[in-house]
Amino acid sequence: MELTKQLAEAVLSADPLQDRQAIQMAKNGLLDVAAAAFAAKEDEGHQKLMTLVEEEGGAAQIPVIGQGKKVSRQSAAMLNGYLIHALDYDDVHSDVRGHPSAVIVPALLSQLTAGKSYGYRFLAAYITGVEVMARLGESIGKAHYERGWHNTGTLGAIAAVCAIGYLKNVSQEELTKAIGFAGAQSAGMRKQFGTHMKPLQAGLAAKTAVWSMDVACLGFGGSDSVLDGENGFFSLYGDQELAERRLLEGYGVTWRIVSPGLWFKVYPFCSAAHHAADAIESLVKERASLRDQIEQVDVIFPPGGDAALTERTPLTGEEGRFSVEYVIALAVFGYTFSLAAFTKKAISPELRTWMKRVNREYDHTVESHPDAVPKGRFTIVKLTLSDGTTISKRVDIPRGAPGHALSKVDIMQKLNSVTDVSHAQMIVQAIEEENDSSYLQLLA
Amino acid sequence: MELTKQLAEAVLSADPLQDRQAIQMAKNGLLDVAAAAFAAKEDEGHQKLMTLVEEEGGAAQIPVIGQGKKVSRQSAAMLNGYLIHALDYDDVHSDVRGHPSAVIVPALLSQLTAGKSYGYRFLAAYITGVEVMARLGESIGKAHYERGWHNTGTLGAIAAVCAIGYLKNVSQEELTKAIGFAGAQSAGMRKQFGTHMKPLQAGLAAKTAVWSMDVACLGFGGSDSVLDGENGFFSLYGDQELAERRLLEGYGVTWRIVSPGLWFKVYPFCSAAHHAADAIESLVKERASLRDQIEQVDVIFPPGGDAALTERTPLTGEEGRFSVEYVIALAVFGYTFSLAAFTKKAISPELRTWMKRVNREYDHTVESHPDAVPKGRFTIVKLTLSDGTTISKRVDIPRGAPGHALSKVDIMQKLNSVTDVSHAQMIVQAIEEENDSSYLQLLA
Repeated sequence: MELTKQLAEAVLSADPLQDRQAIQMAKNGLLDVAAAAFAAKEDEGHQKLMTLVEEEGGAAQIPVIGQGKKVSRQSAAMLNGYLIHALDYDDVHSDVRGHPSAVIVPALLSQLTAGKSYGYRFLAAYITGVEVMARLGESIGKAHYERGWHNTGTLGAIAAVCAIGYLKNVSQEELTKAIGFAGAQSAGMRKQFGTHMKPLQAGLAAKTAVWSMDVACLGFGGSDSVLDGENGFFSLYGDQELAERRLLEGYGVTWRIVSPGLWFKVYPFCSAAHHAADAIESLVKERASLRDQIEQVDVIFPPGGDAALTERTPLTGEEGRFSVEYVIALAVFGYTFSLAAFTKKAISPELRTWMKRVNREYDHTVESHPDAVPKGRFTIVKLTLSDGTTISKRVDIPRGAPGHALSKVDIMQKLNSVTDVSHAQMIVQAIEEENDSSYLQLLA
Repeated sequence: MELTKQLAEAVLSADPLQDRQAIQMAKNGLLDVAAAAFAAKEDEGHQKLMTLVEEEGGAAQIPVIGQGKKVSRQSAAMLNGYLIHALDYDDVHSDVRGHPSAVIVPALLSQLTAGKSYGYRFLAAYITGVEVMARLGESIGKAHYERGWHNTGTLGAIAAVCAIGYLKNVSQEELTKAIGFAGAQSAGMRKQFGTHMKPLQAGLAAKTAVWSMDVACLGFGGSDSVLDGENGFFSLYGDQELAERRLLEGYGVTWRIVSPGLWFKVYPFCSAAHHAADAIESLVKERASLRDQIEQVDVIFPPGGDAALTERTPLTGEEGRFSVEYVIALAVFGYTFSLAAFTKKAISPELRTWMKRVNREYDHTVESHPDAVPKGRFTIVKLTLSDGTTISKRVDIPRGAPGHALSKVDIMQKLNSVTDVSHAQMIVQAIEEENDSSYLQLLA
């Protein structure tokens, strides 16, 4: 049997509900999705997309998160995907090298038109989507991302279509075709990083998935071997041979939503600065008076480890999302890493002047922890005080990352910071009761 | 200046209206588009897409060709693109290695919301779209198609966005961004050849173009260098170095809609089989009794020349669109290459058995005609009769192809075969008067 059919078969015949840990992780994921999307609900790019969607018109089918509006199923998938990923505050997954929930969850939410609740099945579908996206990430090969593809976009549509297929329990033939439609429309470029288009690529992948399953279920004609052989998806976007070995190996035995697991972000800024953030927080926590004594801060990365931290002298909090200098300064001045610190608001002259004390260094001789996230990464923060004393702290696995994961209580805190406590409590309850329909209404 | 910006600048500053031949070719193109789409107006796949579009809802903005219905601008771009390409009866272009008008014309038609007519500017925009798509085809390199990309889909969105940009006279900044959105969502796989999804990939590229320009004009944030350098469009999908040399070389001096020119199809099947069709027709025309004597048919291509002819043992006329075996058999059995021969109807057992006599061969030693279309292509049909005699015929430039092009009168005949004469006459008149708005209403 060919790879495309095999994938459809594996997806439809597995049972993710056997694994209680996977279910708990999926519940945490839904909670984190709510927090990430609410945090972005006033996003300017989103308002522009909404303008366009309203001009095009469409049936009022599915709520857009935090907007009090309903739009068509495809538009909802796009807008909700955008919102979840807009601030880069949503979960990541190291096998995916991207953001699974920003594609999978909105695609699934767009299936809930009739107020029907799928219950446990909704969680199983979500687990399935993460599983397929992680396996696609492994199978497509490292070079895919390095060449410039945006994995969230390029792998998301196929993964989300598998999640929908599981949810709706479609036939193997329908899922095979739908994988083909989604595969043949997979897209997304890293060139768009740092722009509105980056999160939109997540939303567009979700929309492609919704549409692909719909046309497949209408009997629209398509290939049933898009993932296979020469000229197939892996041969075009990645590594066909690797995919044949890895895509389905041991499918359904363990679940990648648990191991290596989703990484829920504790801070609303680039994950490349999370190690340094943990280090400086731990250094200053018990040394309130330290600030006046710090002469210099050295932040030591492996070579290239700060590639994503493009801002050394940010002017606004938004630019500060990509600045380890700003993150260090915030902690030293006693500010929390709240969303308010990362808006369009200008950074104070005092902080901007102080940030000049932060210096980046690179050390290729340090051996990173075997479980470091991402692999090979570490960050050392070294303070030099006015009396010549140095104090340093090293972090290889930041808070939130697999191996150091956020608990449900931690994610609740994240949600509480973006909506009122009673609303947050109702969302938790809907998730606990496996009531996806009520979850969606509460997100509206 | 970078390639993306340079392309936007070149598109906006050129004047295609200086070339009367280009204008005439654009008019022929609009005529041929009408014929190709009307021929498909009862297509089953289209009805399924329409069902989905109507479920999603949307403003009644733009007519769908031959349906008496209006849908939203994006949906119209998708549905009209699908219809134009549904039967593979629409124009091709050898530089594109695909179908320019099926993407560019519907994308442009979706701009005509207010019943406004752009007149000459509409033709200039169409010439621009074909120009950019042909240049993209040259610049992306031969390997792009051979690896499995479907050029109509992967090159169409950027080309159509340039056509729209010219039509609406947007700013260089807006067009640069729009090229970026379209480039980052470019997709389409040859694996879908022989299915409904093939023509839909044209429609989806048109839809992506419409959407990309809309979000760009709303000020949505995106990269202004998607075609540039490492990780850019050409580096991902093709050959960056080739693109830097070829994409803009001599832009605006001559127009590729004229030379090598659009190829209007005389037969409703894949153009890669047109050479063989002409050859077999000429062989059997004066030899009515030949059929009973043919033991074997060898069809000789240059290596890879039959890549698009994916069906060797088609079961239906629809599959037969991509089968040189079926085309040969039809001619030998005395059938005409009418639309009726290429429907979902099963191919008769008699023909299917006979088709086994057709054998494909490849010869890299044959030198093709310098004006062969596409470059380097030839097809030799060699019949071996029961008495051992062989008769063969070689074709390098099939009927309809540039160098052997259909005249306006020929295209009128094509249009007359799919709609009544008075309607066809009104369409011709609207095109002659450069009244795009009236053209669109007549297509409805």
